[in-house]
Amino acid sequence: MHTVIQVTQSFEFSASHRLYCSSMSEDENRQVFGKCANKNGHGHNYVVEVTTCGQPHDTTGTVVDLASAQRVVKDRVIDRFDHKHLNHDCEEFRSMNPSVENIARVVWDRLHGQFGQAELARVRVWETPKTYAEYDGED
Amino acid sequence: MHTVIQVTQSFEFSASHRLYCSSMSEDENRQVFGKCANKNGHGHNYVVEVTTCGQPHDTTGTVVDLASAQRVVKDRVIDRFDHKHLNHDCEEFRSMNPSVENIARVVWDRLHGQFGQAELARVRVWETPKTYAEYDGED
Amino acid sequence: MHTVIQVTQSFEFSASHRLYCSSMSEDENRQVFGKCANKNGHGHNYVVEVTTCGQPHDTTGTVVDLASAQRVVKDRVIDRFDHKHLNHDCEEFRSMNPSVENIARVVWDRLHGQFGQAELARVRVWETPKTYAEYDGED
Amino acid sequence: MHTVIQVTQSFEFSASHRLYCSSMSEDENRQVFGKCANKNGHGHNYVVEVTTCGQPHDTTGTVVDLASAQRVVKDRVIDRFDHKHLNHDCEEFRSMNPSVENIARVVWDRLHGQFGQAELARVRVWETPKTYAEYDGED
Amino acid sequence: MHTVIQVTQSFEFSASHRLYCSSMSEDENRQVFGKCANKNGHGHNYVVEVTTCGQPHDTTGTVVDLASAQRVVKDRVIDRFDHKHLNHDCEEFRSMNPSVENIARVVWDRLHGQFGQAELARVRVWETPKTYAEYDGED
Amino acid sequence: MHTVIQVTQSFEFSASHRLYCSSMSEDENRQVFGKCANKNGHGHNYVVEVTTCGQPHDTTGTVVDLASAQRVVKDRVIDRFDHKHLNHDCEEFRSMNPSVENIARVVWDRLHGQFGQAELARVRVWETPKTYAEYDGED
Repeated sequence: MHTVIQVTQSFEFSASHRLYCSSMSEDENRQVFGKCANKNGHGHNYVVEVTTCGQPHDTTGTVVDLASAQRVVKDRVIDRFDHKHLNHDCEEFRSMNPSVENIARVVWDRLHGQFGQAELARVRVWETPKTYAEYDGED
Repeated sequence: MHTVIQVTQSFEFSASHRLYCSSMSEDENRQVFGKCANKNGHGHNYVVEVTTCGQPHDTTGTVVDLASAQRVVKDRVIDRFDHKHLNHDCEEFRSMNPSVENIARVVWDRLHGQFGQAELARVRVWETPKTYAEYDGED
Repeated sequence: MHTVIQVTQSFEFSASHRLYCSSMSEDENRQVFGKCANKNGHGHNYVVEVTTCGQPHDTTGTVVDLASAQRVVKDRVIDRFDHKHLNHDCEEFRSMNPSVENIARVVWDRLHGQFGQAELARVRVWETPKTYAEYDGED
Repeated sequence: MHTVIQVTQSFEFSASHRLYCSSMSEDENRQVFGKCANKNGHGHNYVVEVTTCGQPHDTTGTVVDLASAQRVVKDRVIDRFDHKHLNHDCEEFRSMNPSVENIARVVWDRLHGQFGQAELARVRVWETPKTYAEYDGED
Repeated sequence: MHTVIQVTQSFEFSASHRLYCSSMSEDENRQVFGKCANKNGHGHNYVVEVTTCGQPHDTTGTVVDLASAQRVVKDRVIDRFDHKHLNHDCEEFRSMNPSVENIARVVWDRLHGQFGQAELARVRVWETPKTYAEYDGED
Repeated sequence: MHTVIQVTQSFEFSASHRLYCSSMSEDENRQVFGKCANKNGHGHNYVVEVTTCGQPHDTTGTVVDLASAQRVVKDRVIDRFDHKHLNHDCEEFRSMNPSVENIARVVWDRLHGQFGQAELARVRVWETPKTYAEYDGED
């Protein structure tokens, strides 16, 4: 069979962040981001869903080796952001607002091209159980 | 970066409905909808997932202001349907069967074009934790 | 071994209800119950958790036969309330307000003593994913 | 209105499986699949999400009769795999590794063309609450 | 009927914290709390479950007015901790380590005696979907 | 403060089992356990909730060191049962039916007394998202 299958794995990290743009005044930040701009930040249990896709291997019938894929995501994303303050501890977000949209883009960039034969198809980042951003590499 | 990101927010309302088409006889309604056609109706905790998409703002890195988007959905959808009997209390469903598919279409129509720069990409309505309908505006 | 084990099974029904006490005026009902007193009612996907307890059977190591227990709950609770309007269709709630507390009591009364050797230990009724009432038979 | 709506229903089955390719040696299987290749197998509570799509019926406003669709999935998928050892009890997987990707393909094949007017749009199979495969018929 | 019923309501807040005891050295903190002691803190979506109990009111059949109870918890707990850094922004945790156990005790103290006729029976605080602390006032 | 707090942590393992008592005939097993007695077994994603209790430490405010407790449960329970066939691979269940009640008892016995100052208060084992057994050491 010649088919394309998607495989999705789910991961978690706990981090602090503050919605804040240094190019805007304190007042503007407060106006745009409300309590999310509080000076000392707040935090979330983030959930990252990583979707890869490709043709299942003729013999094994798998698109991606799940254990290897887990290691990639752990090394390149979870260990980097888990138990960190995104604005202070993570270079990416020193000058870029750690909105959930920007986190999704950054996770995409850190994972794109890292799964061998399988392609990265989609990254979904949940900030709370009620809100997520999703990026599929579309320009 | 020039990218398109999706953002999804989740909402809830509790409502009654009865699956019933006035153009069909009682017997036909019973045959087609079974116990869902019971005269006094039954109810659900509906969950509405609203997905908007667009390019993140250059400075803020957000696609949509989450708080404003929440107000739009609350005003135009949740307050209208929450703690109501859809067939009796909501004009839309007086002559249209409140199937979960029709509810998804109606929610789409009430939200389409209401998110400024961001576009409505998808509406998903869960009737139970096991069943949902989804509409993305496709004709 | 001489031990007491609890076993919990989960069930669902979808129903309408209206919070309303006939001994109170319309205004009082509105004041006490707010939008929950809306005339045409609203609805929920109720979840019922039934906990039985007892000593595991010497040979089988089970407290209760799960399939039989399911039949009991289905016959005595789920079939009675599913796809009904509690106030109009269910005798119990004609003169008793179908608050989640009262539903828990009624479910307890309908299940108590129905599980053979195993005792009913607890009934939990979820009205929404955020609110439940629980009754353990305590006077 | 001329619109295309998707409807998704969710199902469960509990099964054993062993990741194992008979064309590979024991050592290779162990190397590729790790503990998933353990000789006596292990098991999962699988969740199957079935998505159909189509134009809602002019009168009833439904894409698919939910009760009929449930019967189809129960007959053709759930009853076949529930409480089985996939490798030993299910012909499909005697010579094909029961990876979650292959299970998704097999479920697709067993459901494709079985929903009358509505088309099968997508099959998603969860192996654990953190991992799923998805197939939409794409070659 | 003379019965005691429990009612549980669920709430959420997003906050940062750092596990840290000022009476211990940096090294000791690091040894005891690992990455949870990282200087800039990390965060969680906390879930607070508040259980009250009492006899249902003779007429209304309710133990507690759900809307009033919500206001109490919102005013006394959620607004105080939501979108805050617990160690820096909340007086309680300036000199007390904001472990999930201590958060549960503090929430208990802020809610005890605040529900009129109904008694506070239990406070459960989830730090992640996999870890919670619970306090029922037992000395 | 002199208080007793409970702390609960959640774990998962995937395993096969077959409900079967060697002291009963094939027919009796089939009659009592239905499809759960199928010869080749079936499987589940088990979830184990471990509750410990005690007085929070004066300085750290914790009842149990979460990381240490995780290691104990991983070493003594998860590694032992994960990706195994309980009847064939685990000595405990060679002559004892691996009912969810018996699994809860066995987990209790393997964890009791292993948490230092903190006491084991309760073990809950979920066999499916709808069924669990719970044991608190009560004789």
